[in-house]
Amino acid sequence: MRKIKVKAYSTSANLGPGYDILALAHNAFADELVMEIDKIHAGNRIRIIGNNVPPEAKKNSAGLPLIKLFNEFDIRESVTIHITKNIPVGSGLGSSGSSAAASIAAANELFSLSLSRDEMIRFAMEGECASSGTPHADNVAASIYGYVVSVNSVNPPRAYNIKTEMDLRFMSIIPDVHIPEKTKLARSMVPFSITMESGIRNSRNLASLISGFASGKRDLIRDGMDDGIVERSRLSLFPYYTSIKANVMKKNAVGVCVSGAGPTILILYDNETDLHGIEDKIDQIMRSAGITYRRSYSTLSGGMEIE
Amino acid sequence: MRKIKVKAYSTSANLGPGYDILALAHNAFADELVMEIDKIHAGNRIRIIGNNVPPEAKKNSAGLPLIKLFNEFDIRESVTIHITKNIPVGSGLGSSGSSAAASIAAANELFSLSLSRDEMIRFAMEGECASSGTPHADNVAASIYGYVVSVNSVNPPRAYNIKTEMDLRFMSIIPDVHIPEKTKLARSMVPFSITMESGIRNSRNLASLISGFASGKRDLIRDGMDDGIVERSRLSLFPYYTSIKANVMKKNAVGVCVSGAGPTILILYDNETDLHGIEDKIDQIMRSAGITYRRSYSTLSGGMEIE
Repeated sequence: MRKIKVKAYSTSANLGPGYDILALAHNAFADELVMEIDKIHAGNRIRIIGNNVPPEAKKNSAGLPLIKLFNEFDIRESVTIHITKNIPVGSGLGSSGSSAAASIAAANELFSLSLSRDEMIRFAMEGECASSGTPHADNVAASIYGYVVSVNSVNPPRAYNIKTEMDLRFMSIIPDVHIPEKTKLARSMVPFSITMESGIRNSRNLASLISGFASGKRDLIRDGMDDGIVERSRLSLFPYYTSIKANVMKKNAVGVCVSGAGPTILILYDNETDLHGIEDKIDQIMRSAGITYRRSYSTLSGGMEIE
Repeated sequence: MRKIKVKAYSTSANLGPGYDILALAHNAFADELVMEIDKIHAGNRIRIIGNNVPPEAKKNSAGLPLIKLFNEFDIRESVTIHITKNIPVGSGLGSSGSSAAASIAAANELFSLSLSRDEMIRFAMEGECASSGTPHADNVAASIYGYVVSVNSVNPPRAYNIKTEMDLRFMSIIPDVHIPEKTKLARSMVPFSITMESGIRNSRNLASLISGFASGKRDLIRDGMDDGIVERSRLSLFPYYTSIKANVMKKNAVGVCVSGAGPTILILYDNETDLHGIEDKIDQIMRSAGITYRRSYSTLSGGMEIE
């Protein structure tokens, strides 16, 4: 019987001023998903087997988009999905988005649907509802496209890669913190309206960040990866962030941001960065905040890998 | 006696979603400015001679930044400035910015001040006060840097070029319309606050526009050169714009925007654009609006040329 195996990487959305726009994929972690047709059970049944995932399809990031896809393409067969979850759940590293993207990519292959990447985003976005209540496209776009992506439109979804020649390297600071209904909460903290002035300031940063990726100029990324709206509105969720950011930039990181809705902090670094200085400083900050954490090192990764 | 001659090109600011951020320089028009030391009159006197320019230094875009520069560098000599104004005044093509930039560049050369481009922006911005009451950096940044520029910060001014390999071509539609105190009025129409949602939509467009320039993908520019905040708030000033925009995009232009605070409309086109179709359509639209206008064709230009 035919089995499709998909590997989908961890992702970080927002990147400072790019709320609901920018994201990137990194090889810090990767989920693996195997999908096969279930010949025994008739009638589009979706069976999900895995560690640390809700077994009910409707409540599962991999299951919900599949229900939508099965309905739209009138697929009557049943499938079994085995998920090996390696991306930490609820950490802001795109765990739910990766499962959703992997599930749609596997079905696309298994049923020869020839979906475009943007069509895959449309279905995979539904998976984000399962975990956060709101469909948002940035993490799934990064899972599907790989590298640095920008979401141009959500309805219909349209994304594209921002090409960069930079050897981007990342340190993820993953606190052992569980915030219930985190993404829903974090999204509710974003202000409904902003002043034009702060909008222009953030847009300047966004322009600088994108130009930095495209041109390979680290100073433009340093200037640009700074957010005065969304990150600021959520500071109470990540009390350690302000101090980490100030210290990390002093030690010449390329940039630092909250990864998605947090609590993970993503640090961009290169050869000019005092990496050990940063590690020591973060140890200090987190110890005095009484929060345990782990570090993960990664580089940019491509999109999903399909076997 | 030493004479410095500077040629400064016309510019278009905003480019849709890049209000107070993006601008570009084109060779549609160029002002020429000649500056020489006036040995006869002592005591930092600034004499301005030219067609269609206010002779009083304080009220003149070339004079005002020079007063600031003379004060700051304690320059005691007098100068005579001859301005040949070719950029139409009050048209949204950066006429005042070009004079200001040319004046500062000439003084930089004449008095060997070794100003950086960003320092030149700082002084030249003052010239914008003479014509609009507000210092803004976008047009002077384009005059000084040339090509496509992004303003990263206004205080202190910091700008950079967005590199593009595209063979960008422009049609300027310059209506014979005079709006008194136009820039001041147009700036007062911009809303004080915006919804986060419309901010995100505009930021998506800005991201797409910049990525389009950087990658040479015309579709990203087509998607991105669309503004739902600033252009929309000023529509009553340019009643012909909505119809021009819709028709020009239908005929496959790369993009269309209001040039700065208008009334000029800037159209980006390439080989895929139905240029004659656009010309005919605009003739029709402007005729039925009862507005005479002229067209000008140009390409991207560099920064100032100094002899």
